Amino acid sequence: MSQKFTSREADYSKWYTDVIDRADLAEHSDVKGCMVIKPYGFAIWEKMKEELDKMFKETGHSNAYFPLFIPKSYLSKEASHVDGFAKECAVVTHYRLKMGEDGKNVVVDPDAKLEEELIVRPTSETIIWNSYKKWIQSYRDLPILINQWANVVRWEMRTRLFLRTTEFLWQEGHTAHATEDDAIEETEKMLDVYATFAEKYMAMPVIRGLKSESERFAGALETYCIEAMMQDGKALQAGTSHFLGQNFAKAFEVKFSDKTGKQEYVWATSWGVSTRLIGALIMTHSDDQGLVLPPSLAPIQVVFVPIFKTDEEKEAIDNKVHALMAEMKTAGISVKYDDDDNRRPGWKFAEYEAKGVPVRVAIGPRDLENNNAEVARRDTKEKNIISLDGLSQHIASLLDEIQDSLFNKAKAFREENTRKVNDYETFKTQLKKEGGFFLAHWDGTVETEQKIKDETKATIRCIPLDREEEAGVCMYSGKPSAGRVVFAKAY
Amino acid sequence: MSQKFTSREADYSKWYTDVIDRADLAEHSDVKGCMVIKPYGFAIWEKMKEELDKMFKETGHSNAYFPLFIPKSYLSKEASHVDGFAKECAVVTHYRLKMGEDGKNVVVDPDAKLEEELIVRPTSETIIWNSYKKWIQSYRDLPILINQWANVVRWEMRTRLFLRTTEFLWQEGHTAHATEDDAIEETEKMLDVYATFAEKYMAMPVIRGLKSESERFAGALETYCIEAMMQDGKALQAGTSHFLGQNFAKAFEVKFSDKTGKQEYVWATSWGVSTRLIGALIMTHSDDQGLVLPPSLAPIQVVFVPIFKTDEEKEAIDNKVHALMAEMKTAGISVKYDDDDNRRPGWKFAEYEAKGVPVRVAIGPRDLENNNAEVARRDTKEKNIISLDGLSQHIASLLDEIQDSLFNKAKAFREENTRKVNDYETFKTQLKKEGGFFLAHWDGTVETEQKIKDETKATIRCIPLDREEEAGVCMYSGKPSAGRVVFAKAY
Repeated sequence: MSQKFTSREADYSKWYTDVIDRADLAEHSDVKGCMVIKPYGFAIWEKMKEELDKMFKETGHSNAYFPLFIPKSYLSKEASHVDGFAKECAVVTHYRLKMGEDGKNVVVDPDAKLEEELIVRPTSETIIWNSYKKWIQSYRDLPILINQWANVVRWEMRTRLFLRTTEFLWQEGHTAHATEDDAIEETEKMLDVYATFAEKYMAMPVIRGLKSESERFAGALETYCIEAMMQDGKALQAGTSHFLGQNFAKAFEVKFSDKTGKQEYVWATSWGVSTRLIGALIMTHSDDQGLVLPPSLAPIQVVFVPIFKTDEEKEAIDNKVHALMAEMKTAGISVKYDDDDNRRPGWKFAEYEAKGVPVRVAIGPRDLENNNAEVARRDTKEKNIISLDGLSQHIASLLDEIQDSLFNKAKAFREENTRKVNDYETFKTQLKKEGGFFLAHWDGTVETEQKIKDETKATIRCIPLDREEEAGVCMYSGKPSAGRVVFAKAY
Repeated sequence: MSQKFTSREADYSKWYTDVIDRADLAEHSDVKGCMVIKPYGFAIWEKMKEELDKMFKETGHSNAYFPLFIPKSYLSKEASHVDGFAKECAVVTHYRLKMGEDGKNVVVDPDAKLEEELIVRPTSETIIWNSYKKWIQSYRDLPILINQWANVVRWEMRTRLFLRTTEFLWQEGHTAHATEDDAIEETEKMLDVYATFAEKYMAMPVIRGLKSESERFAGALETYCIEAMMQDGKALQAGTSHFLGQNFAKAFEVKFSDKTGKQEYVWATSWGVSTRLIGALIMTHSDDQGLVLPPSLAPIQVVFVPIFKTDEEKEAIDNKVHALMAEMKTAGISVKYDDDDNRRPGWKFAEYEAKGVPVRVAIGPRDLENNNAEVARRDTKEKNIISLDGLSQHIASLLDEIQDSLFNKAKAFREENTRKVNDYETFKTQLKKEGGFFLAHWDGTVETEQKIKDETKATIRCIPLDREEEAGVCMYSGKPSAGRVVFAKAY
């Protein structure tokens, strides 16, 4: 416990790893690129899933489950999809092992070679559209609004816990529509769900935008995204929603008869968020003492720590705390009482600070006498003596206040670190010196974006949906531009 | 919709497939042995997950997530485990595809061969104990009580939807304990959770028992199971809980220092249930008109079907139904109103019957006038005219009644089809003629069990935990036996 955290200032990347380690969220496994999500980290993912799943269902979606394996040939069916995804994949070539000649170790049975190799899904458009082909005949079968919670695998050479791992958990929505308008409406609706989730539950402000052509999903006509700023000023893509046009319908020959009996290709969308969101959550709020969690996603919202010397003192505290906890549970607050005898209060304070528990309540014999307790906020570290009468209501509103305050702080940070720039030299200097987001004019070409990326490592994070129409000239090429886009270095 | 069901009598196996097809639960995918779980089928799995997850958490367990891939060498570490699981596995040998010479189809990149092949997990003992090794040093780190919801793959040559598929969804609990007693207590506790879930939520009576040696999990010292009787008299193993002793701790060198500082191997359990439970649910309650669902696991508990000719009639019904639905939702009942104009009431009746919706409420203009509705039970097909005043309470208690009645019916069926036999000839004759469960004496040897299996296809399903101690002689060998075991043909 007495391990010191690396500060963000000293080594941001090491700080990130330290926070995960000390809060006991996850660790690298011995399987290259794959992580173990430990119970406390998984509990955060469960909270996220629960809220997102509710939002998906409220917008008319149902969950289903499609196979983990995709026949190799499916990936070749959609031309741009294959370029994007048929590269770094886990390939299953055999279906049996046998005991080796040493009688101790198993070996792959050469007689059990698959006729066609199977790919562990990197994303499921192809396998799902192969099913939709069977499900869709008429306009009456549309829309299909399905989501899947699943694991996916993309072979990664350089991995970082939560942010980039070979296997990760995610949800992928795959919908089918009769018209282009319906599909675009769905794409935008789901972007909205993601943005609402990010801001309301994660307390993480996001910019809603469109990806430039070179950052688009492989197979999409348009990729919508939400982008957030991390504390090192870098951008993190937190969710994407793709308008796929008729690309997958054409690749898998999925047509429907419309009301007039005419055969048309089906319109598609897909959208997803992943365990990467946990990385975003960590880097948005945490500090040099460890994890900071917004109350809405905290597995434990309030921890009670008793301070006592004698058994009688302990018993009196126990009685009071149990009564207070019962009251809070009724109010829907998740509470833990840590009365472990083997640890001192100071150890516990540091522990729950590292774990990002939003509110800590310490109660000793003197507090009991005075009918109050010390209530400490994790985010600001502010401590107050609060009366035990009405403590539950006080904490309920404190949790709301913390949630709002985290959002406002993150938003202010983003605003401070977002700069309008008009010339490329200033952009390069400021990017190097201060980082953050840059609102700059761009001529709309892939070439210019690529050159800026090669020279500065910054990319276009998005074309904001709410940007002002403002005629200008591209900071790089001097050619005309219809409005500013967001440039930043990104995770 | 006018498809006719095969009757159970005519072709039980075809009937099973028909029920799944008509209720739209799942289908075979084009990937050999893998299924697509469709939204309605997945909704049943979600209900199961929700209840089980609650029960796991109430008994002190947390969820976590471990890698999909297991290095081949891990499987060789536990001697009996390797025999059981390192056979029919999906083996990942490569991590990259590349565009083939035809410029159209992808091929496996021979340069991207893995040094050590990875196995897609058939079960996770090995990968998890490889982590536990790092997590456990002292008795203070114990117990570890972790569960994982995951997909697993066991290459199957002959598959049946839900009952046996190459990929399936399940949960696997993996716990670590300081003492043998603690581990056995955990094994029994989780068997109890499964039995309670099966009986309370699935309305499926189960026998709790121990597996004979030959049916034990590969690596377990003792496998506890719950066994249910399907409507064709065959047994289905619905859940297992394994006492693993110190086998995996020894294989992965996981020791802890006890309170005296002595190094000891850790004791282990594992336990799981899978999407197979949906197969069990179907075969326990459904009939020749389709799926029958116990209300506790029905995605839709009540469906309202309006019967009308004019728009005015429709509007009046709408108003009434919306009010009734609001009331029911408040009472925690899941309700659907099917006012689709394109389908006739008769079509809808058959549809919801096929889908096993426990209660159907039909309302027409005359019903409105008389302030009542026709309430039909799916299980007994009984119909009654019920007053709209108090309809919600009526239905709430009807749902309870259906739940109980399904359990009692299934239990009575099992009792009718369970026979004590004392001699092998009678056993063979009755097994052939009537099927079901047989309580018979057995000498406790693997040899006798194997011979009976070879000659009759029946196996020992379990040694019931609550069996009477009754000295007898083995029906096959004539050797002494301490009590009766359950023989049956099994899924």
